[in-house]
Amino acid sequence: MRERFHEHLDSFAATLAILCESSGTAMREATVALLRADLELAEKVIDDVGRIDQLALGCEENAFTLLALQAPVAGELRQIVGGVHIVADIGRMGGLARHVAQVTRRRHPDQVLPDDVRTEFAEMGRVAVAMAATAGDVLAGHDPERAAGLDLDDEAIDEMQSRLLVHITGPAWEHGVQAAIDVTLLARYYERYADHAVQVGRRVVYLVTGSNPPGSGALR
Amino acid sequence: MRERFHEHLDSFAATLAILCESSGTAMREATVALLRADLELAEKVIDDVGRIDQLALGCEENAFTLLALQAPVAGELRQIVGGVHIVADIGRMGGLARHVAQVTRRRHPDQVLPDDVRTEFAEMGRVAVAMAATAGDVLAGHDPERAAGLDLDDEAIDEMQSRLLVHITGPAWEHGVQAAIDVTLLARYYERYADHAVQVGRRVVYLVTGSNPPGSGALR
Repeated sequence: MRERFHEHLDSFAATLAILCESSGTAMREATVALLRADLELAEKVIDDVGRIDQLALGCEENAFTLLALQAPVAGELRQIVGGVHIVADIGRMGGLARHVAQVTRRRHPDQVLPDDVRTEFAEMGRVAVAMAATAGDVLAGHDPERAAGLDLDDEAIDEMQSRLLVHITGPAWEHGVQAAIDVTLLARYYERYADHAVQVGRRVVYLVTGSNPPGSGALR
Repeated sequence: MRERFHEHLDSFAATLAILCESSGTAMREATVALLRADLELAEKVIDDVGRIDQLALGCEENAFTLLALQAPVAGELRQIVGGVHIVADIGRMGGLARHVAQVTRRRHPDQVLPDDVRTEFAEMGRVAVAMAATAGDVLAGHDPERAAGLDLDDEAIDEMQSRLLVHITGPAWEHGVQAAIDVTLLARYYERYADHAVQVGRRVVYLVTGSNPPGSGALR
Protein backbone atom coordinates (compact mmCIF):
# COMPACT_ATOMS: atom_id res chain seq x y z
CA MET A 1 0.00 0.00 0.00
CA ARG A 2 2.76 2.41 1.06
CA GLU A 3 4.75 1.40 -2.00
CA ARG A 4 1.82 2.01 -4.29
CA PHE A 5 1.42 5.46 -2.73
CA HIS A 6 5.01 6.34 -3.54
CA GLU A 7 4.60 5.11 -7.11
CA HIS A 8 1.64 7.45 -7.45
CA LEU A 9 3.60 10.33 -5.92
CA ASP A 10 6.45 9.75 -8.37
CA SER A 11 4.06 9.60 -11.29
CA PHE A 12 2.47 12.86 -10.09
CA ALA A 13 5.87 14.59 -10.05
CA ALA A 14 6.72 13.17 -13.48
CA THR A 15 3.43 14.48 -14.90
CA LEU A 16 4.26 17.95 -13.57
CA ALA A 17 7.59 17.88 -15.39
CA ILE A 18 5.85 16.80 -18.63
CA LEU A 19 3.26 19.55 -18.22
CA CYS A 20 6.00 22.13 -17.76
CA GLU A 21 7.83 20.93 -20.85
CA SER A 22 4.59 21.03 -22.87
CA SER A 23 3.91 24.60 -21.75
CA GLY A 24 7.44 25.52 -22.84
CA THR A 25 6.93 23.91 -26.25
CA ALA A 26 3.58 25.69 -26.62
CA MET A 27 5.19 29.08 -25.98
CA ARG A 28 8.11 28.32 -28.32
CA GLU A 29 5.77 27.37 -31.14
CA ALA A 30 3.38 30.23 -30.38
CA THR A 31 6.30 32.66 -30.70
CA VAL A 32 7.41 31.14 -34.01
CA ALA A 33 3.83 31.28 -35.30
CA LEU A 34 3.61 34.93 -34.19
CA LEU A 35 6.85 35.92 -35.91
CA ARG A 36 5.98 34.06 -39.14
CA ALA A 37 2.21 34.75 -39.15
CA ASP A 38 1.90 30.96 -39.40
CA LEU A 39 -1.78 30.08 -39.05
CA GLU A 40 -1.27 26.32 -39.13
CA LEU A 41 1.27 26.42 -36.30
CA ALA A 42 -0.93 28.80 -34.29
CA GLU A 43 -3.80 26.33 -34.57
CA LYS A 44 -1.54 23.47 -33.54
CA VAL A 45 -0.62 25.42 -30.39
CA ILE A 46 -4.29 26.04 -29.60
CA ASP A 47 -5.02 22.30 -29.95
CA ASP A 48 -1.96 21.32 -27.93
CA VAL A 49 -2.91 23.62 -25.07
CA GLY A 50 -6.34 21.95 -25.01
CA ARG A 51 -4.49 18.71 -24.35
CA ILE A 52 -2.35 20.40 -21.65
CA ASP A 53 -5.62 21.48 -19.96
CA GLN A 54 -6.85 17.89 -19.98
CA LEU A 55 -3.54 16.62 -18.61
CA ALA A 56 -3.63 19.29 -15.89
CA LEU A 57 -7.15 18.30 -14.91
CA GLY A 58 -6.11 14.63 -14.76
CA CYS A 59 -3.10 15.62 -12.67
CA GLU A 60 -5.31 17.34 -10.15
CA GLU A 61 -7.66 14.36 -10.00
CA ASN A 62 -4.59 12.22 -9.46
CA ALA A 63 -3.64 14.38 -6.47
CA PHE A 64 -7.02 13.72 -4.89
CA THR A 65 -6.66 9.99 -5.56
CA LEU A 66 -3.29 10.11 -3.84
CA LEU A 67 -4.81 11.84 -0.86
CA ALA A 68 -7.68 9.37 -0.66
CA LEU A 69 -5.50 6.29 -1.22
CA GLN A 70 -3.60 6.62 2.00
CA ALA A 71 -3.41 9.34 4.61
CA PRO A 72 -0.03 10.80 3.69
CA VAL A 73 2.34 12.23 6.30
CA ALA A 74 2.84 16.00 6.58
CA GLY A 75 5.79 16.29 4.18
CA GLU A 76 4.01 14.29 1.51
CA LEU A 77 0.87 16.35 1.95
CA ARG A 78 2.82 19.53 1.53
CA GLN A 79 4.26 18.10 -1.67
CA ILE A 80 0.85 17.22 -3.06
CA VAL A 81 -0.77 20.53 -2.14
CA GLY A 82 2.24 22.38 -3.54
CA GLY A 83 1.99 20.21 -6.64
CA VAL A 84 -1.62 21.20 -7.14
CA HIS A 85 -0.51 24.86 -7.09
CA ILE A 86 2.22 24.10 -9.58
CA VAL A 87 -0.31 22.43 -11.89
CA ALA A 88 -2.32 25.66 -11.78
CA ASP A 89 0.73 27.80 -12.63
CA ILE A 90 1.81 25.56 -15.49
CA GLY A 91 -1.76 25.43 -16.77
CA ARG A 92 -1.79 29.24 -16.85
CA MET A 93 1.50 29.22 -18.77
CA GLY A 94 -0.15 27.02 -21.39
CA GLY A 95 -3.16 29.34 -21.42
CA LEU A 96 -0.93 32.35 -22.09
CA ALA A 97 0.83 30.55 -24.97
CA ARG A 98 -2.67 29.93 -26.36
CA HIS A 99 -3.44 33.66 -26.06
CA VAL A 100 -0.36 34.44 -28.19
CA ALA A 101 -1.50 31.89 -30.79
CA GLN A 102 -5.02 33.33 -30.78
CA VAL A 103 -3.75 36.83 -31.58
CA THR A 104 -1.77 35.36 -34.51
CA ARG A 105 -4.87 33.56 -35.75
CA ARG A 106 -7.06 36.65 -35.38
CA ARG A 107 -4.78 38.83 -37.53
CA HIS A 108 -3.92 36.19 -40.13
CA PRO A 109 -2.88 36.61 -42.96
CA ASP A 110 -1.54 39.93 -41.64
CA GLN A 111 1.53 40.12 -39.46
CA VAL A 112 0.66 41.09 -35.88
CA LEU A 113 4.04 42.67 -35.20
CA PRO A 114 5.54 45.68 -36.98
CA ASP A 115 9.18 45.15 -37.96
CA ASP A 116 10.56 47.41 -35.24
CA VAL A 117 9.36 45.18 -32.37
CA ARG A 118 9.98 41.71 -33.87
CA THR A 119 13.45 41.32 -32.34
CA GLU A 120 12.10 42.22 -28.91
CA PHE A 121 9.38 39.57 -29.11
CA ALA A 122 11.77 36.95 -30.43
CA GLU A 123 13.90 37.66 -27.36
CA MET A 124 10.97 37.65 -24.94
CA GLY A 125 9.91 34.32 -26.40
CA ARG A 126 13.41 32.91 -26.07
CA VAL A 127 13.71 33.95 -22.41
CA ALA A 128 10.17 32.76 -21.57
CA VAL A 129 10.82 29.32 -23.09
CA ALA A 130 14.16 29.12 -21.26
CA MET A 131 12.31 29.91 -18.03
CA ALA A 132 9.88 27.04 -18.61
CA ALA A 133 12.88 24.75 -19.15
CA THR A 134 14.53 26.01 -15.94
CA ALA A 135 11.30 25.59 -14.00
CA GLY A 136 11.05 22.03 -15.35
CA ASP A 137 14.63 21.32 -14.25
CA VAL A 138 13.99 22.78 -10.81
CA LEU A 139 10.86 20.63 -10.59
CA ALA A 140 12.70 17.49 -11.63
CA GLY A 141 15.81 18.06 -9.50
CA HIS A 142 14.40 20.08 -6.63
CA ASP A 143 17.39 22.39 -6.95
CA PRO A 144 16.62 25.71 -5.23
CA GLU A 145 19.77 27.32 -6.65
CA ARG A 146 18.45 27.27 -10.19
CA ALA A 147 15.13 28.78 -9.08
CA ALA A 148 16.99 32.01 -8.22
CA GLY A 149 17.98 32.33 -11.90
CA LEU A 150 14.29 32.56 -12.76
CA ASP A 151 14.10 35.92 -10.97
CA LEU A 152 16.83 37.35 -13.20
CA ASP A 153 15.07 36.16 -16.35
CA ASP A 154 11.83 37.56 -15.02
CA GLU A 155 13.45 40.97 -14.53
CA ALA A 156 14.81 40.80 -18.10
CA ILE A 157 11.30 40.21 -19.44
CA ASP A 158 9.87 43.02 -17.29
CA GLU A 159 12.50 45.37 -18.74
CA MET A 160 11.70 44.31 -22.30
CA GLN A 161 8.03 44.90 -21.61
CA SER A 162 8.78 48.38 -20.24
CA ARG A 163 10.95 49.26 -23.24
CA LEU A 164 8.17 48.13 -25.58
CA LEU A 165 5.59 50.27 -23.78
CA VAL A 166 7.89 53.30 -23.98
CA HIS A 167 8.48 52.64 -27.68
CA ILE A 168 4.83 52.29 -28.68
CA THR A 169 3.84 55.45 -26.82
CA GLY A 170 6.79 57.45 -28.20
CA PRO A 171 7.06 59.64 -31.30
CA ALA A 172 8.77 56.89 -33.34
CA TRP A 173 5.65 54.69 -33.27
CA GLU A 174 3.88 54.94 -36.61
CA HIS A 175 1.74 51.82 -36.67
CA GLY A 176 -1.42 53.15 -35.07
CA VAL A 177 -3.54 52.13 -32.13
CA GLN A 178 -4.51 48.57 -33.17
CA ALA A 179 -0.88 47.44 -33.47
CA ALA A 180 -0.06 49.20 -30.19
CA ILE A 181 -2.84 47.30 -28.43
CA ASP A 182 -1.72 43.97 -29.87
CA VAL A 183 1.85 44.67 -28.73
CA THR A 184 0.63 45.74 -25.27
CA LEU A 185 -1.40 42.58 -24.71
CA LEU A 186 1.24 40.27 -26.19
CA ALA A 187 3.94 41.79 -23.98
CA ARG A 188 1.65 41.28 -21.00
CA TYR A 189 1.15 37.60 -21.91
CA TYR A 190 4.91 36.99 -21.95
CA GLU A 191 5.32 38.92 -18.71
CA ARG A 192 2.61 36.87 -16.99
CA TYR A 193 4.05 33.65 -18.40
CA ALA A 194 7.41 34.56 -16.82
CA ASP A 195 5.69 35.35 -13.50
CA HIS A 196 4.10 31.91 -13.40
CA ALA A 197 7.45 30.24 -14.18
CA VAL A 198 8.92 32.17 -11.22
CA GLN A 199 6.04 30.95 -9.05
CA VAL A 200 6.76 27.34 -10.01
CA GLY A 201 10.36 27.81 -8.91
CA ARG A 202 9.30 29.45 -5.63
CA ARG A 203 6.85 26.67 -4.91
CA VAL A 204 9.59 24.09 -5.30
CA VAL A 205 11.92 26.09 -3.04
CA TYR A 206 9.13 26.30 -0.51
CA LEU A 207 8.56 22.56 -0.70
CA VAL A 208 12.26 21.82 -0.26
CA THR A 209 13.18 24.39 2.36
CA GLY A 210 9.82 25.13 4.02
CA SER A 211 10.37 28.89 3.65
CA ASN A 212 10.04 31.48 0.93
CA PRO A 213 13.12 32.86 -0.81
CA PRO A 214 13.95 36.39 0.46
CA GLY A 215 11.91 39.17 -1.12
CA SER A 216 9.65 36.79 -2.97
CA GLY A 217 6.43 38.09 -1.47
CA ALA A 218 3.44 35.88 -0.91
CA LEU A 219 3.17 32.69 -2.90
CA ARG A 220 0.25 33.16 -5.20
CA MET B 1 -8.15 16.48 18.63
CA ARG B 2 -10.86 15.85 16.06
CA GLU B 3 -12.81 18.79 17.43
CA ARG B 4 -9.80 21.04 17.24
CA PHE B 5 -9.30 20.00 13.63
CA HIS B 6 -12.85 21.02 12.76
CA GLU B 7 -12.39 24.36 14.51
CA HIS B 8 -9.33 24.96 12.33
CA LEU B 9 -11.21 23.93 9.21
CA ASP B 10 -14.03 26.36 10.07
CA SER B 11 -11.57 29.15 10.71
CA PHE B 12 -9.89 28.39 7.37
CA ALA B 13 -13.23 28.71 5.54
CA ALA B 14 -14.03 31.92 7.43
CA THR B 15 -10.68 33.41 6.44
CA LEU B 16 -11.41 32.62 2.78
CA ALA B 17 -14.69 34.53 3.00
CA ILE B 18 -12.90 37.51 4.59
CA LEU B 19 -10.22 37.42 1.90
CA CYS B 20 -12.89 37.42 -0.81
CA GLU B 21 -14.66 40.38 0.78
CA SER B 22 -11.36 42.28 1.06
CA SER B 23 -10.59 41.66 -2.62
CA GLY B 24 -14.05 42.99 -3.49
CA THR B 25 -13.50 46.11 -1.38
CA ALA B 26 -10.08 46.62 -2.98
CA MET B 27 -11.60 46.54 -6.48
CA ARG B 28 -14.46 48.82 -5.49
CA GLU B 29 -12.07 51.41 -4.07
CA ALA B 30 -9.61 50.97 -6.94
CA THR B 31 -12.42 51.75 -9.40
CA VAL B 32 -13.49 54.83 -7.44
CA ALA B 33 -9.86 56.00 -7.30
CA LEU B 34 -9.56 55.42 -11.05
CA LEU B 35 -12.70 57.38 -11.88
CA ARG B 36 -11.79 60.29 -9.55
CA ALA B 37 -8.01 60.25 -10.13
CA ASP B 38 -7.83 59.96 -6.34
CA LEU B 39 -4.18 59.35 -5.39
CA GLU B 40 -4.84 58.90 -1.68
CA LEU B 41 -7.44 56.21 -2.25
CA ALA B 42 -5.23 54.49 -4.84
CA GLU B 43 -2.44 54.31 -2.26
CA LYS B 44 -4.83 52.97 0.36
CA VAL B 45 -5.78 50.17 -2.05
CA ILE B 46 -2.12 49.34 -2.67
CA ASP B 47 -1.50 49.13 1.10
CA ASP B 48 -4.65 47.10 1.69
CA VAL B 49 -3.70 44.56 -0.97
CA GLY B 50 -0.34 44.14 0.76
CA ARG B 51 -2.30 43.08 3.82
CA ILE B 52 -4.47 40.74 1.72
CA ASP B 53 -1.23 39.11 0.52
CA GLN B 54 -0.11 38.57 4.10
CA LEU B 55 -3.49 37.16 5.06
CA ALA B 56 -3.40 34.83 2.03
CA LEU B 57 0.05 33.61 2.99
CA GLY B 58 -1.12 32.98 6.54
CA CYS B 59 -4.16 31.18 5.19
CA GLU B 60 -1.96 28.84 3.19
CA GLU B 61 0.27 28.18 6.19
CA ASN B 62 -2.88 27.45 8.12
CA ALA B 63 -3.83 24.83 5.51
CA PHE B 64 -0.52 23.07 6.05
CA THR B 65 -1.01 23.21 9.82
CA LEU B 66 -4.42 21.63 9.36
CA LEU B 67 -2.89 18.87 7.28
CA ALA B 68 -0.15 18.23 9.80
CA LEU B 69 -2.44 18.41 12.82
CA GLN B 70 -4.40 15.34 11.99
CA ALA B 71 -4.55 13.16 8.92
CA PRO B 72 -7.84 14.41 7.49
CA VAL B 73 -10.24 12.12 5.65
CA ALA B 74 -10.62 12.36 1.87
CA GLY B 75 -13.50 14.87 1.83
CA GLU B 76 -11.71 17.18 4.25
CA LEU B 77 -8.50 16.95 2.25
CA ARG B 78 -10.35 17.88 -0.90
CA GLN B 79 -11.74 20.88 0.93
CA ILE B 80 -8.32 22.00 2.11
CA VAL B 81 -6.62 21.52 -1.25
CA GLY B 82 -9.52 23.26 -2.98
CA GLY B 83 -9.28 26.02 -0.39
CA VAL B 84 -5.61 26.53 -1.17
CA HIS B 85 -6.59 27.04 -4.83
CA ILE B 86 -9.28 29.49 -3.82
CA VAL B 87 -6.74 31.45 -1.76
CA ALA B 88 -4.63 31.74 -4.90
CA ASP B 89 -7.56 32.99 -7.00
CA ILE B 90 -8.64 35.53 -4.39
CA GLY B 91 -5.04 36.67 -3.99
CA ARG B 92 -4.88 37.30 -7.74
CA MET B 93 -8.11 39.29 -7.54
CA GLY B 94 -6.47 41.52 -4.94
CA GLY B 95 -3.37 41.78 -7.15
CA LEU B 96 -5.48 42.94 -10.09
CA ALA B 97 -7.21 45.60 -7.94
CA ARG B 98 -3.70 46.76 -7.02
CA HIS B 99 -2.81 46.97 -10.74
CA VAL B 100 -5.79 49.28 -11.30
CA ALA B 101 -4.67 51.46 -8.38
CA GLN B 102 -1.09 51.53 -9.68
CA VAL B 103 -2.22 52.86 -13.08
CA THR B 104 -4.16 55.62 -11.27
CA ARG B 105 -1.08 56.48 -9.20
CA ARG B 106 1.20 56.47 -12.26
CA ARG B 107 -0.94 58.99 -14.18
CA HIS B 108 -1.81 61.22 -11.22
CA PRO B 109 -2.75 64.10 -11.27
CA ASP B 110 -4.00 63.32 -14.78
CA GLN B 111 -7.13 61.31 -15.36
CA VAL B 112 -6.33 57.87 -16.81
CA LEU B 113 -9.67 57.55 -18.58
CA PRO B 114 -11.00 59.78 -21.35
CA ASP B 115 -14.63 60.81 -20.80
CA ASP B 116 -16.01 58.49 -23.47
CA VAL B 117 -14.98 55.29 -21.62
CA ARG B 118 -15.69 56.29 -18.01
CA THR B 119 -19.21 54.85 -17.94
CA GLU B 120 -17.92 51.54 -19.28
CA PHE B 121 -15.29 51.26 -16.54
CA ALA B 122 -17.75 52.28 -13.82
CA GLU B 123 -19.94 49.43 -15.05
CA MET B 124 -17.08 46.91 -15.29
CA GLY B 125 -16.09 47.85 -11.75
CA ARG B 126 -19.66 47.45 -10.52
CA VAL B 127 -20.03 43.98 -12.07
CA ALA B 128 -16.56 42.87 -10.91
CA VAL B 129 -17.28 43.89 -7.31
CA ALA B 130 -20.68 42.18 -7.47
CA MET B 131 -18.90 39.02 -8.66
CA ALA B 132 -16.56 39.11 -5.66
CA ALA B 133 -19.61 39.42 -3.41
CA THR B 134 -21.32 36.48 -5.16
CA ALA B 135 -18.15 34.39 -4.92
CA GLY B 136 -17.99 35.21 -1.21
CA ASP B 137 -21.62 34.15 -0.75
CA VAL B 138 -21.02 30.93 -2.68
CA LEU B 139 -17.98 30.30 -0.48
CA ALA B 140 -19.92 30.94 2.71
CA GLY B 141 -23.04 29.03 1.73
CA HIS B 142 -21.65 26.41 -0.63
CA ASP B 143 -24.56 27.14 -2.97
CA PRO B 144 -23.73 25.89 -6.47
CA GLU B 145 -26.78 27.65 -7.95
CA ARG B 146 -25.35 31.10 -7.36
CA ALA B 147 -22.02 30.11 -8.91
CA ALA B 148 -23.78 29.77 -12.28
CA GLY B 149 -24.66 33.49 -12.10
CA LEU B 150 -20.94 34.27 -12.10
CA ASP B 151 -20.69 32.95 -15.66
CA LEU B 152 -23.30 35.45 -16.85
CA ASP B 153 -21.50 38.35 -15.16
CA ASP B 154 -18.24 37.12 -16.64
CA GLU B 155 -19.76 37.19 -20.13
CA ALA B 156 -21.03 40.73 -19.50
CA ILE B 157 -17.51 41.86 -18.61
CA ASP B 158 -16.05 40.08 -21.65
CA GLU B 159 -18.53 41.94 -23.85
CA MET B 160 -17.67 45.29 -22.26
CA GLN B 161 -14.00 44.57 -22.84
CA SER B 162 -14.67 43.71 -26.52
CA ARG B 163 -16.71 46.88 -27.00
CA LEU B 164 -13.91 48.95 -25.47
CA LEU B 165 -11.31 47.38 -27.77
CA VAL B 166 -13.50 48.08 -30.81
CA HIS B 167 -13.99 51.68 -29.64
CA ILE B 168 -10.33 52.48 -29.04
CA THR B 169 -9.27 51.06 -32.40
CA GLY B 170 -12.11 52.80 -34.28
CA PRO B 171 -12.20 56.19 -36.02
CA ALA B 172 -13.95 57.87 -33.06
CA TRP B 173 -10.91 57.40 -30.79
CA GLU B 174 -9.04 60.67 -30.51
CA HIS B 175 -7.00 60.19 -27.35
CA GLY B 176 -3.84 58.67 -28.81
CA VAL B 177 -1.84 55.55 -28.12
CA GLN B 178 -0.99 56.07 -24.42
CA ALA B 179 -4.64 56.33 -23.38
CA ALA B 180 -5.49 53.36 -25.63
CA ILE B 181 -2.84 51.24 -23.89
CA ASP B 182 -4.05 52.24 -20.42
CA VAL B 183 -7.61 51.34 -21.41
CA THR B 184 -6.46 48.03 -22.92
CA LEU B 185 -4.57 46.96 -19.80
CA LEU B 186 -7.24 48.19 -17.40
CA ALA B 187 -9.95 46.32 -19.30
CA ARG B 188 -7.77 43.22 -19.16
CA TYR B 189 -7.38 43.58 -15.36
CA TYR B 190 -11.15 43.66 -14.88
CA GLU B 191 -11.60 40.75 -17.25
CA ARG B 192 -9.01 38.65 -15.38
CA TYR B 193 -10.53 39.64 -12.05
CA ALA B 194 -13.88 38.33 -13.28
CA ASP B 195 -12.23 35.10 -14.48
CA HIS B 196 -10.76 34.46 -11.03
CA ALA B 197 -14.14 35.10 -9.38
CA VAL B 198 -15.63 32.50 -11.75
CA GLN B 199 -12.86 30.08 -10.77
CA VAL B 200 -13.67 30.54 -7.08
CA GLY B 201 -17.29 29.64 -7.82
CA ARG B 202 -16.27 26.60 -9.88
CA ARG B 203 -13.94 25.40 -7.15
CA VAL B 204 -16.75 25.51 -4.63
CA VAL B 205 -19.07 23.64 -7.01
CA TYR B 206 -16.35 21.07 -7.49
CA LEU B 207 -15.89 20.70 -3.75
CA VAL B 208 -19.61 20.28 -3.20
CA THR B 209 -20.54 18.08 -6.15
CA GLY B 210 -17.21 16.45 -7.02
CA SER B 211 -17.62 17.34 -10.69
CA ASN B 212 -17.15 20.40 -12.86
CA PRO B 213 -20.14 22.40 -14.04
CA PRO B 214 -20.89 21.67 -17.74
CA GLY B 215 -18.74 23.54 -20.21
CA SER B 216 -16.48 24.95 -17.56
CA GLY B 217 -13.26 23.55 -18.98
CA ALA B 218 -10.34 22.55 -16.81
CA LEU B 219 -10.10 24.08 -13.37
CA ARG B 220 -7.08 26.26 -13.46
